[in-house]
Amino acid sequence: MPTQTTIFYHPDLEKDTFQLDPEEAKHLKTLRIRAGHTLELVDGKGHRVRAVVRSPAVKDCQLEIVERYPLPPPPAHRIHIAVAPTKSSDRIEWLLEKTIEIGIDRLTLIQTQHSVRTQLKPERLYRKGLAAMKQSLRAHMPAVEGVLSLEELFGQATEEHRFIAHNGKEVVAHLQEVAPKAGSYLVLVGPEGGFSEEELTFAAEAGCLPVLLGDSRLRTETAALVACLTLQLLNT
Amino acid sequence: MPTQTTIFYHPDLEKDTFQLDPEEAKHLKTLRIRAGHTLELVDGKGHRVRAVVRSPAVKDCQLEIVERYPLPPPPAHRIHIAVAPTKSSDRIEWLLEKTIEIGIDRLTLIQTQHSVRTQLKPERLYRKGLAAMKQSLRAHMPAVEGVLSLEELFGQATEEHRFIAHNGKEVVAHLQEVAPKAGSYLVLVGPEGGFSEEELTFAAEAGCLPVLLGDSRLRTETAALVACLTLQLLNT
Repeated sequence: MPTQTTIFYHPDLEKDTFQLDPEEAKHLKTLRIRAGHTLELVDGKGHRVRAVVRSPAVKDCQLEIVERYPLPPPPAHRIHIAVAPTKSSDRIEWLLEKTIEIGIDRLTLIQTQHSVRTQLKPERLYRKGLAAMKQSLRAHMPAVEGVLSLEELFGQATEEHRFIAHNGKEVVAHLQEVAPKAGSYLVLVGPEGGFSEEELTFAAEAGCLPVLLGDSRLRTETAALVACLTLQLLNT
Repeated sequence: MPTQTTIFYHPDLEKDTFQLDPEEAKHLKTLRIRAGHTLELVDGKGHRVRAVVRSPAVKDCQLEIVERYPLPPPPAHRIHIAVAPTKSSDRIEWLLEKTIEIGIDRLTLIQTQHSVRTQLKPERLYRKGLAAMKQSLRAHMPAVEGVLSLEELFGQATEEHRFIAHNGKEVVAHLQEVAPKAGSYLVLVGPEGGFSEEELTFAAEAGCLPVLLGDSRLRTETAALVACLTLQLLNT
């Protein structure tokens, strides 16, 4: 089998020497990484380094950075998806994993009138996100936040291109037809029951253009994924 | 909450009167559908009808077709994804659900040199597929088959536009850049370990062009979904 690069995670790569978290360090043995070997790490903030193992002990794993990779140029586009939580938290965990693989900058859970109750465990969501980030060899962990009201969302939103996914008969444009290339995007995706009329009006006043995401009815998490990938393909 | 259309499934809608399968019929009570009410059905082969309930009994649910919707025009494109099974069968079930929502004509599981062992239950896969078809209000259930060898796959393949997803350094074109609009597509997606050199050569001889699906490493099921959605967006 071809060798796959394994990426390790450490939240702070400022200092040249540091101790790896035991959760991460326990993988060294499995991968037969010993003292003197080097490995790659990311901090979720865009930094990526190569470090040599000084001590591979799980509970006291000492590393020293030997190379710092140049930061990639900031992307010409940024994607923020704001989505109503699904009944099953699995579906949002899945969405986070997939959007991290494809590329996303911010995922916000929003409270809507037709939202279902959900029991999202932020810690689990974060862990899933980290695993997806490492799996896809990305150095960036998106911001994950929520649950916010639409007022809170728009109160802090700075995105220039804003859209709301809606299957109403008056909506004729697909996201890929109306989204300009580059810039910062915000796409709102509603719950299974859709957005209410008040919410649609409120979003329109906040500058959101209603858009289609396809010719069929999509589940909430599928719609959010399609929105993210449509914008990535537009910028590929 | 806005009412959502519920779609029922019956494999054969040729005759005007028929008995609904108890698995489907049990939903009538939950939805408060009684004798005299009408409901919509699909057969997974593209047919869609409205039928009146003559008897709502779960074990002897009698329906009579009162309207047959015109068949939609055949699409100008057809998508066939051939993918290596994942270790967890959940991921392939998820892939089937998502590609049905987005639109797919055929999903084939392929045996490759680096494939992992998998325990896919075809019945469960089929049930998941039906649920996704109804959820997305589609009348078409894609063909699901496998596990086939590459020889078997190409032996029966009729697609005109053929691609193989590969992250090798010599591959520079993204699927969306090289796939023409309309026509029939076949995209091969390999296991986590990638395709072997022999497999890449064999696929090239069978007319497959190597393509990228993004700038990051994608899991097998994510890559298959990205391929499907890229082709759908190209034809939207």
